[in-house]
Amino acid sequence: MSERPETNGAESLVRTLVAGGADVCFSNPGTSEMHFVAALDRVEGMACVLCLFEGVATGAADGWARMTGRPGLTLLHLGPGLANGLANLHNAKKAGTPLVNIVGEHTTQHLGYDAPLTSDTEGVARPMSHWLRTGRDSRGIAQDGADAITAARTACAAGPGQVATLILPADTAWGPGATPVMPAAPPARPAVSDEAIAAAVAAIRRGSETLLFLGADAVRAPALALAGAIAAKTGAKIMGRTSLARIERGAGHVVLPRLPYPIDLSLETLRPFSTLVLLGAPDPVAFFGYPGKPSRLAPEGAEILPVADGTYDLMDALERIAEAVGARVADAPRAALARPPLPNGTLTAETAMTAIAALMPEGAVIVDESITSGRHTAPITANAPPHDWLQITGGAIGIGPPLALGAAVAVPERQVINLQADGSAMYTLQALWSQARVRAKVLTVIWSNRSYAILTGELMAVGATNPGRKALDMLSLDDPALDWVSLARGMGVPALRADTAEAFVAAVRAGLQENGPFLIEAVI
Amino acid sequence: MSERPETNGAESLVRTLVAGGADVCFSNPGTSEMHFVAALDRVEGMACVLCLFEGVATGAADGWARMTGRPGLTLLHLGPGLANGLANLHNAKKAGTPLVNIVGEHTTQHLGYDAPLTSDTEGVARPMSHWLRTGRDSRGIAQDGADAITAARTACAAGPGQVATLILPADTAWGPGATPVMPAAPPARPAVSDEAIAAAVAAIRRGSETLLFLGADAVRAPALALAGAIAAKTGAKIMGRTSLARIERGAGHVVLPRLPYPIDLSLETLRPFSTLVLLGAPDPVAFFGYPGKPSRLAPEGAEILPVADGTYDLMDALERIAEAVGARVADAPRAALARPPLPNGTLTAETAMTAIAALMPEGAVIVDESITSGRHTAPITANAPPHDWLQITGGAIGIGPPLALGAAVAVPERQVINLQADGSAMYTLQALWSQARVRAKVLTVIWSNRSYAILTGELMAVGATNPGRKALDMLSLDDPALDWVSLARGMGVPALRADTAEAFVAAVRAGLQENGPFLIEAVI
Repeated sequence: MSERPETNGAESLVRTLVAGGADVCFSNPGTSEMHFVAALDRVEGMACVLCLFEGVATGAADGWARMTGRPGLTLLHLGPGLANGLANLHNAKKAGTPLVNIVGEHTTQHLGYDAPLTSDTEGVARPMSHWLRTGRDSRGIAQDGADAITAARTACAAGPGQVATLILPADTAWGPGATPVMPAAPPARPAVSDEAIAAAVAAIRRGSETLLFLGADAVRAPALALAGAIAAKTGAKIMGRTSLARIERGAGHVVLPRLPYPIDLSLETLRPFSTLVLLGAPDPVAFFGYPGKPSRLAPEGAEILPVADGTYDLMDALERIAEAVGARVADAPRAALARPPLPNGTLTAETAMTAIAALMPEGAVIVDESITSGRHTAPITANAPPHDWLQITGGAIGIGPPLALGAAVAVPERQVINLQADGSAMYTLQALWSQARVRAKVLTVIWSNRSYAILTGELMAVGATNPGRKALDMLSLDDPALDWVSLARGMGVPALRADTAEAFVAAVRAGLQENGPFLIEAVI
Repeated sequence: MSERPETNGAESLVRTLVAGGADVCFSNPGTSEMHFVAALDRVEGMACVLCLFEGVATGAADGWARMTGRPGLTLLHLGPGLANGLANLHNAKKAGTPLVNIVGEHTTQHLGYDAPLTSDTEGVARPMSHWLRTGRDSRGIAQDGADAITAARTACAAGPGQVATLILPADTAWGPGATPVMPAAPPARPAVSDEAIAAAVAAIRRGSETLLFLGADAVRAPALALAGAIAAKTGAKIMGRTSLARIERGAGHVVLPRLPYPIDLSLETLRPFSTLVLLGAPDPVAFFGYPGKPSRLAPEGAEILPVADGTYDLMDALERIAEAVGARVADAPRAALARPPLPNGTLTAETAMTAIAALMPEGAVIVDESITSGRHTAPITANAPPHDWLQITGGAIGIGPPLALGAAVAVPERQVINLQADGSAMYTLQALWSQARVRAKVLTVIWSNRSYAILTGELMAVGATNPGRKALDMLSLDDPALDWVSLARGMGVPALRADTAEAFVAAVRAGLQENGPFLIEAVI
């Protein structure tokens, strides 16, 4: 790129981000970002999607990055705007998603005064950012942006990227800019030591008492095929973390069971194993601490072999293990294609999932924030046509509709299906509007159970038994009942309600024919 | 309160909060708060309002506290739940609202593991909290709660209270509790020095070149009456900050002009003054920094007399000033009661406000997040029946519907009228559901201009002229148009759309007859 003495900082930054592959910006801008916004029209190749709440922007950037492998990008307004996006940044951080947040800030001079919107923006960013910097001058902001891209593309323990936040004081945007910078490549991921591989191989050779516990890139298709082959050859078992950022599944893929969420069930699931071989996954811990129950889920006395977290070359590790045990990818057991018959009768999470398995097109992207309604139903789609499956990763609810928006923008030719708990959907329902605006091919299925159903179980699990009226009132969403058909239409998304399996089938067929978003309220 | 050896930490905390006057809890609980929730049924006098998003809970607690003068209370779930509430905590912090956040946290032991929902909760809380503590054991949590109440009731520069955040690890809730604690009184506010009063009096005696610039408690009715009397006696002028947490206005009250928001207009408004006497208000600064324009708004060379911020006894200061200049409260000029005739014809912000001035009942509470649509229309209600006026204080949009919810819960016999910009309403529209759930008497008027209208002006003000298509796309909400009638109905709130003055009048009449929430989409 040539010298552009007439450019400003914002323009040099936008060009740098595009050069780094971050070329869709999920935005909710304000005054301090107006020069960045103005630069969008002067730079080729940057698309911008307006979001009406920052949690939509951060969740959408996460979904876009999970599907493209490139850094997702947000544009946010000052500390409070960033704060609104933090919950989904938490999810992205736990997923190891490559993400760059550009957060506008007051001018350097104006920060000396206590203006109404002045806050500790770095302080707001720090808990949910792996990398954090405030721009100091307009000529350096392109380099700052390049460094943010490189940081975002650097693997962390949980996955292939990091959350990088660059704070952009308005004067660093409107002041004179320098030449755009091509971001440096992230550091190469090191190979696992021979000793760690040897220990893993020895454990895996012991067969069915050994569990390969998988996460990060070790659950993506090429790695999972190797893991499946290793398991088939040795009798060792494979299992994924409870929440996974992205897996490929359905016909032609290795089936990956996941560690269940409920504390008792997760303890029971791991009880048979004397050894856990960790590849891209941590020593498994419970979602919450419960009275009288352990935080660590592996059986007491089980051997834990932390072979490698997500910062290592996990494909290489799996290839060396496969070679040592004589496993061949071609021998990995793969799911056959088998669609269930269309369901009829009562609409339940099971019959609804059966309808989806029967009707979903090849190459669908399932965005799963089902919470309770989805726990037992995922196996129903195991033999559906091949598809991607994205999950809530950090437990911060309200990721589904934004994640679906971002995925649909990333792969517009594919059908996105958002399986969505109603309580969680309420956190970021504004995403429906952006879906309508960009004609995102998202079919949202709201599991309308009109409660925070998960908490009914949790109240018992923590020993708060015999809840009274006020306590139960905190778990119920039925007064008034949310009318999701009206909510969707209010944001420009066509919608239907279904309370029988037949009506649900018809609604799914209608939704899949839309060339844009559609919502089904599944009353279960 | 007697010793209760069988109580747990949560129960001792709830009893302490009730004793401290924080007896309505705006909640969005999760697993880690289940013991707090269970305790609600065992303690008399604590009401709980479920909110479907944490920004609703924090904004509602702010509105409740502004109307009751007691500490508002929230119950939030871990770092991400707190993060969702931060933007409205920012507004509360800038308002100086007394507020206590109880933030559930993993058990102390579980925090040692990197569970999905683990984050730096103190780090999330710090930027928007004046006071912050993490509970260490269940027997100390009642004292922690009492300290939080005292901190919340301690005045800050901006107003009568502070934001206090108490993080509650689950084991400090379910472990054995101690006796509830009666919170200590906050420290008394000191009197302003005689020297500062004398300097203020000397400046005020110079008459119309002197401005009493008011904020914090100096704009509440008794103080404002004194300020009005002083101005009437001396010829000095009075003016409030651009954004005020709460004022009483309408018939019988002193009229308080406010410093305008737009940078050029605010500079022009202050230009006539050679001296600014600050009472509960800071040296005025612009909302944003703009190229080639000052951050400070007072004329260059003007004398600034910072008599007292909100931590001082402002009533006492005004009484001493009044006595020195010989002003009597009885002589303060008061607005007469004068309702305008009902408007007809085109619906604009002006005709709509005229209809409201004509129809609003005595004792109404106006919650103003009008942004652009409300800047010039406030004077229309200056002679309406006496009412309260609450504003967005920290510039973090999305406060209106929650603030209205909290105000309606605080004063259920009064009519709340939320004048609400459409773009801002989208941030926290979930508040409508809680309004329906508790039958809150809130009439919401959505100024439906289908744009971030404020940013069109800001784009020019920062010098980003000639915006292109992509830039303008970031300011427009018209594709698709938000259908607020459907959105409201989806949350159980009856609604009407109005696009003429006549239709608006009819809709206001209908809304004021509801014994619960009602929404009008005013297409302007």
